[in-house]
Amino acid sequence: MDANIVASGTGNGKQLLRTVGDRKPLVWKFGGTSVADHGRLRAVAERMVAAQRAGHDVVAILSAMGRSTDALSAMAYEMSARPPLRELDALLSVAESISCALASMAVADLGSHAVSLNGAQAGIRTDDNHGNARLNDIAPRRIRETLAGGSIVLVTGFQGMSESGDVTTLGRGGSDASAVAVAAALGAHECEIFTDVPGVFTADPRIVPDAHRLDVIRHEEMLKMAEAGAAVLQPRSVELAITHGIDIHLRSSFNTEVGTWIRHAGGRFEVRGAFDVAGIAHRRQESLYGVRDVDVSEVAAALAERGIAMGAAVPRKGGLEFTTPGVSALETAAALDAVGVPAKVDEDLGSITVVSLGIGRRPGIIAHSRAALRAAGIAPRLITTMPGRVSVLVDSNLLEEAVRVLHATFIPVAPEPRLIASPAA
Amino acid sequence: MDANIVASGTGNGKQLLRTVGDRKPLVWKFGGTSVADHGRLRAVAERMVAAQRAGHDVVAILSAMGRSTDALSAMAYEMSARPPLRELDALLSVAESISCALASMAVADLGSHAVSLNGAQAGIRTDDNHGNARLNDIAPRRIRETLAGGSIVLVTGFQGMSESGDVTTLGRGGSDASAVAVAAALGAHECEIFTDVPGVFTADPRIVPDAHRLDVIRHEEMLKMAEAGAAVLQPRSVELAITHGIDIHLRSSFNTEVGTWIRHAGGRFEVRGAFDVAGIAHRRQESLYGVRDVDVSEVAAALAERGIAMGAAVPRKGGLEFTTPGVSALETAAALDAVGVPAKVDEDLGSITVVSLGIGRRPGIIAHSRAALRAAGIAPRLITTMPGRVSVLVDSNLLEEAVRVLHATFIPVAPEPRLIASPAA
Repeated sequence: MDANIVASGTGNGKQLLRTVGDRKPLVWKFGGTSVADHGRLRAVAERMVAAQRAGHDVVAILSAMGRSTDALSAMAYEMSARPPLRELDALLSVAESISCALASMAVADLGSHAVSLNGAQAGIRTDDNHGNARLNDIAPRRIRETLAGGSIVLVTGFQGMSESGDVTTLGRGGSDASAVAVAAALGAHECEIFTDVPGVFTADPRIVPDAHRLDVIRHEEMLKMAEAGAAVLQPRSVELAITHGIDIHLRSSFNTEVGTWIRHAGGRFEVRGAFDVAGIAHRRQESLYGVRDVDVSEVAAALAERGIAMGAAVPRKGGLEFTTPGVSALETAAALDAVGVPAKVDEDLGSITVVSLGIGRRPGIIAHSRAALRAAGIAPRLITTMPGRVSVLVDSNLLEEAVRVLHATFIPVAPEPRLIASPAA
Repeated sequence: MDANIVASGTGNGKQLLRTVGDRKPLVWKFGGTSVADHGRLRAVAERMVAAQRAGHDVVAILSAMGRSTDALSAMAYEMSARPPLRELDALLSVAESISCALASMAVADLGSHAVSLNGAQAGIRTDDNHGNARLNDIAPRRIRETLAGGSIVLVTGFQGMSESGDVTTLGRGGSDASAVAVAAALGAHECEIFTDVPGVFTADPRIVPDAHRLDVIRHEEMLKMAEAGAAVLQPRSVELAITHGIDIHLRSSFNTEVGTWIRHAGGRFEVRGAFDVAGIAHRRQESLYGVRDVDVSEVAAALAERGIAMGAAVPRKGGLEFTTPGVSALETAAALDAVGVPAKVDEDLGSITVVSLGIGRRPGIIAHSRAALRAAGIAPRLITTMPGRVSVLVDSNLLEEAVRVLHATFIPVAPEPRLIASPAA
C-alpha cells in the first residue's frame, strides 16, 4: 500500500491528516452466480468490508443477479419481436444497477459504507454500438473521489454510456472487460475476477477427470484458450489485460482459495513439458463449410463485412473448406447466401484446440496429435494450425474422447510445481 | 398546433421542408395502473402513436409498472433494515426505467419510434434529499432535440438527478410533479394525467353514490381537496401547476372520455350553488393531540423541524388541541416525545373537509355543516376553518356517514352544467 499521508490545513490552524495520492485500489469483479441472491450478495459485501478494514481501497464491478438479465430480456421480446437495441440496453442495464444497489445496502448493514455507480456515473464511456458496445475510455474521477471519501465503490458491470449520453451494454463478457478497464484506469496492476469455478483448468474437468487448475497461465495462452472455446473468460477481457498490462486473478467467490493468475509472461515462466502446452480447449457445434470455384479472399471479405471471421481455411477436394468459430451455422449460411456463394455445410462437428505458444518451434505437436487420435480410433475431419495452437475438427460424438486423448498426450497428470508465488493473498 | 414550416436548403439546390420552432408538445403522464402490464403498455403506446400520427409531438412521463416499486423495496429491506437512502433511490428508480424502455419497444412494434430518457437524460434536476427530492430545474434540451428528430419521448417519472450526479426519487406524487414540471419546461400550457379513475369527483364515489365527476375544478380548489385527503392528485403537482400556470387534465387511461380539467380560475368560472363548494374530501386515520402548559409556537416549531405541519389547532379545555394531517400518529408522537411535550392522543378519528374558495365571504357554511351533522346525529369532535375550507373531525365509525351528509348539504345532485368547453379533445 503506497498511500501518502499529507497534512491539510484548516482556517483555524488545526491540521487534519488525510490519505491521498496514488494508492492502488483492489479491483474486483463478481459474476452473476456470485451475486445470485441476497445471501451471495451478503457474502460479497463481507469480503469487501474485510478487505477495507484491512486497509485497502476496494472497487468491485458487479454482474446482474443470476438470470435476472434473461428475465428482462424475456419482457422485452414479449413486447416486441425486434426491440430497438437502444431500448433493450436501457432495459437490460437495470439488472446491474439492482445488484450494485443491493450490495451497497449489504455493506451498510455490516456497518461500513459503499456507493454504487452506474456506467455513466463511473465514467465508462463506450461507442454507440448498442448491445455490443466497445469501451472507448474510462474517466474514473468519481470512482477516485468516492474511494478518497472512504467508501467502497460498486460499479455496474456490462453497462456504459455512449457519447450521446445513452446507456449501452457491452455484450458477452462485458462485465469482465469493464473490470479490467477500470483496473487499468485506476492504475492498478491487477484485477481479481470472482466466479463460480476455482480457476482456469488444463481442460474442462467435466470431460477430463485428470484436468487440473493452473496456478499461472500467460496472457496469450489464455487468449487462445478463450478464442478456442474455454468459456471461463471472454477473449476481449484478456485482450484488454494484454493491452494495459493487467494481471487477472480468476478465482472462486465461494471460498478464499487462490485461483489462476493470468499474466504477462515476461520471461519468468518455465516451459511446461516437451511441448509447453497450456491447455486443451474445445468448442461444440462447429460447422465446416465447403465452397468451390470462388475467390477465397472474396468469401472472407463478404463474411467479415457481417462481422464473421473465418477460422481455419484449407484447400480441399478442388475447393476450400473453412470454419467460422463461435458463429452459428444459421448466421454463416445467411451470410454466404447473401453473397451468392453456394456452400456445402457439415454441421455436426466439434473442435479441440491444443494451446501452446511454442508451437511454431515444435512442429512435432501436429504429428503427436494425429498419432494419438489415430491410436484412439478417431479420424479427424480437419487439422489446422495457427500461431500458438493446433485445432482438430471431429464428429460431435467423438469430441469428448478426443479432448481426453489430447489432454493425456500433452498435459502431465500431476499439477506442475507452482513456479511463481501469487503476489497477493 | 403552432408549428412553423420553414425551408431548409441543401447543397444541391434542393429544398426539404421541415418542422421547427416552438410547437407545443402534448405532455402526458401515465400512472402505475395505466402501465401495469404488457397489454396496458401496448394501449399507452397505441394512444401515443395515434396522437403522433395526428401531427402532435408527444412527451409521456411514465410511472413504474403496477406494484414493481414495492417489489424492489421489499428486496432492499430484505438486504438491510435501514438501507441508505441514496442506494434505495438507485434501486427503486429502475422500475420507471423498465416501464419506459418497454413502452418504447411497444411503440417500435407499432411502426413508430420512441426514445426513453431517464431522469438524468431528461434533465430533471433535483436537490439531494434522497427519497423525497424536490425539483430544482428541468433542462429539456434532450427532450426537445428528440422531439425535433421525430420521436415520441418517454420520460421516467419519479426520478431525477442531483447536482452531484446521483439518482434521486421524488417521493409521493413524484411522477405527477415531474409531468407538470416537464410541461412547464417545454412551454406547454397543459398536462394530461392518465390514471385509473375518470376524473376528480365531488366526493369519493365509493362512499357517496351521488358524487359526480367535475368537468372543471379550480387549481386552488384542487389543492385544498388534495391537502384534505383526496388521493387522486398530490398537492405538490397542483402547486407546481399553479406556479407555472399549467392546466391539468385528469382522465382515465382506460377510455378516451374527457375527465376533469384543473385550471386557473381566471374569472371565467361561475359560482356553484349558494356556497360554491367544489367538493368534499376526507381522510381516515386522523389523530387529535392534546397538550397543556406549553407554548404553541414552540410545539409548532419542534414539529416543523421534523417536517410535520400542524393542521387545525384550537385552544380547548385550558390547553391546545391540534392535528397533523397526513402524518402518522407514530411519527407525530415520536416528534412530541423528542421535545419532551407530553400529549394526549386520540387516534381513532377521521376528517371531512368542505372545500369552497368563497368560504370567507360565506361564513354560513360552518353553521350549515354543524346543523346538517346534528340532524344526522353526528357530534363533531372539532370543527376548524382555514382559508378555502371547513374541516370536521369525527369518530372513525361516523366518517363515511358524515361525508354523505355534507355532500348532500352542499353539492347539487345533478352534475352542474358544463360551464366551459374543454380546450383539447
